[in-house]
Amino acid sequence: MRMETGLCVLHLFLSPRKPHDPDETDRGAAVAAIQAAEQRGCQVVTAAILGHKGDLAVMALGPEIEALRDLQTGLQRAGLVVTDSYVSITEVSEYAKGLPEHMLQARLYPQLPPEGKPAFCFYPMSKRRDGHSNWYAAPYDKRLAMMHEHGSSGRKFAGQVLQLITGSTGLDAYEWGVTLFGESLQTIKDVVYTLRFDEASALYGEFGDFYVGELAYLDQIFA
Amino acid sequence: MRMETGLCVLHLFLSPRKPHDPDETDRGAAVAAIQAAEQRGCQVVTAAILGHKGDLAVMALGPEIEALRDLQTGLQRAGLVVTDSYVSITEVSEYAKGLPEHMLQARLYPQLPPEGKPAFCFYPMSKRRDGHSNWYAAPYDKRLAMMHEHGSSGRKFAGQVLQLITGSTGLDAYEWGVTLFGESLQTIKDVVYTLRFDEASALYGEFGDFYVGELAYLDQIFA
Amino acid sequence: MRMETGLCVLHLFLSPRKPHDPDETDRGAAVAAIQAAEQRGCQVVTAAILGHKGDLAVMALGPEIEALRDLQTGLQRAGLVVTDSYVSITEVSEYAKGLPEHMLQARLYPQLPPEGKPAFCFYPMSKRRDGHSNWYAAPYDKRLAMMHEHGSSGRKFAGQVLQLITGSTGLDAYEWGVTLFGESLQTIKDVVYTLRFDEASALYGEFGDFYVGELAYLDQIFA
Amino acid sequence: MRMETGLCVLHLFLSPRKPHDPDETDRGAAVAAIQAAEQRGCQVVTAAILGHKGDLAVMALGPEIEALRDLQTGLQRAGLVVTDSYVSITEVSEYAKGLPEHMLQARLYPQLPPEGKPAFCFYPMSKRRDGHSNWYAAPYDKRLAMMHEHGSSGRKFAGQVLQLITGSTGLDAYEWGVTLFGESLQTIKDVVYTLRFDEASALYGEFGDFYVGELAYLDQIFA
Amino acid sequence: MRMETGLCVLHLFLSPRKPHDPDETDRGAAVAAIQAAEQRGCQVVTAAILGHKGDLAVMALGPEIEALRDLQTGLQRAGLVVTDSYVSITEVSEYAKGLPEHMLQARLYPQLPPEGKPAFCFYPMSKRRDGHSNWYAAPYDKRLAMMHEHGSSGRKFAGQVLQLITGSTGLDAYEWGVTLFGESLQTIKDVVYTLRFDEASALYGEFGDFYVGELAYLDQIFA
Repeated sequence: MRMETGLCVLHLFLSPRKPHDPDETDRGAAVAAIQAAEQRGCQVVTAAILGHKGDLAVMALGPEIEALRDLQTGLQRAGLVVTDSYVSITEVSEYAKGLPEHMLQARLYPQLPPEGKPAFCFYPMSKRRDGHSNWYAAPYDKRLAMMHEHGSSGRKFAGQVLQLITGSTGLDAYEWGVTLFGESLQTIKDVVYTLRFDEASALYGEFGDFYVGELAYLDQIFA
Repeated sequence: MRMETGLCVLHLFLSPRKPHDPDETDRGAAVAAIQAAEQRGCQVVTAAILGHKGDLAVMALGPEIEALRDLQTGLQRAGLVVTDSYVSITEVSEYAKGLPEHMLQARLYPQLPPEGKPAFCFYPMSKRRDGHSNWYAAPYDKRLAMMHEHGSSGRKFAGQVLQLITGSTGLDAYEWGVTLFGESLQTIKDVVYTLRFDEASALYGEFGDFYVGELAYLDQIFA
Repeated sequence: MRMETGLCVLHLFLSPRKPHDPDETDRGAAVAAIQAAEQRGCQVVTAAILGHKGDLAVMALGPEIEALRDLQTGLQRAGLVVTDSYVSITEVSEYAKGLPEHMLQARLYPQLPPEGKPAFCFYPMSKRRDGHSNWYAAPYDKRLAMMHEHGSSGRKFAGQVLQLITGSTGLDAYEWGVTLFGESLQTIKDVVYTLRFDEASALYGEFGDFYVGELAYLDQIFA
Repeated sequence: MRMETGLCVLHLFLSPRKPHDPDETDRGAAVAAIQAAEQRGCQVVTAAILGHKGDLAVMALGPEIEALRDLQTGLQRAGLVVTDSYVSITEVSEYAKGLPEHMLQARLYPQLPPEGKPAFCFYPMSKRRDGHSNWYAAPYDKRLAMMHEHGSSGRKFAGQVLQLITGSTGLDAYEWGVTLFGESLQTIKDVVYTLRFDEASALYGEFGDFYVGELAYLDQIFA
Repeated sequence: MRMETGLCVLHLFLSPRKPHDPDETDRGAAVAAIQAAEQRGCQVVTAAILGHKGDLAVMALGPEIEALRDLQTGLQRAGLVVTDSYVSITEVSEYAKGLPEHMLQARLYPQLPPEGKPAFCFYPMSKRRDGHSNWYAAPYDKRLAMMHEHGSSGRKFAGQVLQLITGSTGLDAYEWGVTLFGESLQTIKDVVYTLRFDEASALYGEFGDFYVGELAYLDQIFA
């Protein structure tokens, strides 16, 4: 099964099956699984994650679902346990239809990771539907204005952070996945903190778990 | 125990007991468990799932509860762990009583999987009962009108997606199970995103975990 | 420690410690643990459960706490893992004081399982205490009227379903446990769905996990 | 580190590491760990718990944190797994300052367990802080009046139940721990159910998990 | 990847992989992992934790992310399991910009642990965004006034407690991490209880899990 337009995006968070025993992870097999995915047209980004939620993030983007599924199986067979994951697809949102073509292409077919942005962050996000703040009951023009305010806030960090928002309504527990590549952890914190005061986030944003770490090749992570 | 009308539906999400060791899953025994269920009148649909929530979905529909229970045991004995599940039954909802007979039959006795729709999605759903939006305190005519709006939205995707809604009030944690078969993951996302703006979803919908993947035979999944 | 009036009720949901290996469960020891409880005055009902939350339900009622505790230990020693449980006691609710004596006795000392009702369902339930709907801040007469409406709805299913409501405020996570014995899964769904429109449920009901399956002897379940 | 006034209270809920194998728990080592704590000035109460949340409760009170910590380690080394826990300290609440000295002493230095009250119950509790009911935004006099009403309700059960409320704001997930010793499970249920109608509970009470069982010596529990 | 200003803070909560077997934890390797982090410019604080959420806290602060990540790996390889964690960075909040330079430095580059404060407490915290209390929709002056009230309450405990608040918006599940070093557990409880009545906490505070224990060297903890 292939994507007609855009890419399918699989975020995997993984830990060694036996963290106390470095020989239990077959690093060679893990690297081979990633290379096999790349040969089938996937981009694969890897990061070392801080904390208990997973030692390693593998973010893979590609047009073919089977290649992503095989990557997951290959990493499991190399002795890694998938502790969390997120499924989404690249998209041009309904608020971004009028953007110039090269910007639309960058959303549908991003080239990752960007240069000089070693800090990695992922979190899922939904829009609220409660009595006080129901995004889906708000008229389009109101939502569009809030998204424009939100975009302006974000653009203050242009050059410091690259943000990729992928759609997951119907595909995973939240409605969007947000992947950030930043110059540093401070930048990541500053962006997300600043945006939280925008109406779109302050009143309507609901956030899942945050995964944060540093881009690294797989053999560095398990060195 | 047999169903008098309609079918009992068991969604099982499974992972190998030892994902790092392909020889630990007895594929032959798993296939045999599915064939035994089919010989007892069950339809069995299998899909490869993306992410950490389970490697495999097995959706079984049949008139006899024991056959579904034995399928579950057979898959466990083949070395698969049931990581999540959902129990529901096919139904004609109170808003659909007037439909033509062949449509009622398609709800009570669906023929699955449909042709040309390899993308598989399952999620459970309830209707809200809070101070602002209480579905069960709304009058029937109001609920019927919302369901008709919802149905109209869904029909825009006719041909691209087959949707099966099964009832689970009193049987599992949510009130309905929703199974979608789509042409692609984009279609799945587009349908669910579009429907979320309907009043029935925007104000009253509560959703559980989403499972998404691709239809595949069991021996493909563990190849 | 003995109950002065009524019975203590222990619902245990269990799975084999090694579901892939039928020889790891000592069926003889499990049956012996149940028989020992029966000899100490307990009623023990067993059911095969569908799905991942447990393969087996053991519902035990008796006047002596130690006998229930020993049953739990005996089942664990037979190789079963207690995946969930519920502790409650039989009661005559404050809304049922005026009932005829034989109905009070049936609530305090039920005879289970009833004939011809193979479908088994258990779920815990509380009454809401929020700003819009606070059961415990509502006056007694209002609560009594809602309970009478609720009782009338339930009586439409008399003969098709036997319902046992046991009290668990202070004993477990919810305020009541509800055990249903029905003619079929459809009946279970119809009852719970119908009752959900009653004010007592629509505005005030909060429900935990639902366990559903079919009455069966232990040796059938692990055949 | 010692308490200047009052005692530190550690509730541990434990299960055997291998519940199917009675020889895996070193009962002698577990008893020795409890005796060692007692020799360092701790009171230790043990109870057999019903259900899946833990087989055993160990409630220890003492002036020295290290003695409680060593007790925990000793029980783990004896083959018991700590499945849940609660950390609190004895206190005289701000609503109880004017009580006679012997009552204050009984709160700071309780003598446990009381005679003739074999039913054991523990649950944690907080006061709500939401838009409708914000305990911490209510004036002191209003809170004091509610606590007096609550105390009056509780005193109707004097002699049947001993209640110990210990403070845990900043120490554990809830703001107080409640330990009840009752004549029977019915008494426990009657007290907690009755108090739930008090304004302090109906509008402001939030409750965690309930643990219920029967006082017993460790060697009885694992007999 | 280095911090430009301030320090990255990693709280790790850990338990022995086999708590029943003291020889399974390689204490020497754990101590060596901490010393290696210290040699790379990290401060490392260790504490014995009470209860089931983890036996040990390791709080590490340093300018270099890799050093923190390697510390985590080193502890895992010594046989410790990371049961929970928190990622944050030191910060000067927007309400503290005008403070004297030495106070700003103490927030960005704290010297830990302080003398004479053996009680250790950690919890994460966010500010509410709901219909009644939305911190991020409140104007800056209102927020500043609330923070000043909050600061005044806290200063009543000056000398008894050292508080470090680190920022984690975009980095972990809550928006701030709070680490307290106190003279005793009573002090910890008194501070947090007192502050809860401030408007900033009563109306806007949301708190995660609390970890509490006593500062200790690693070889004391596993003695």
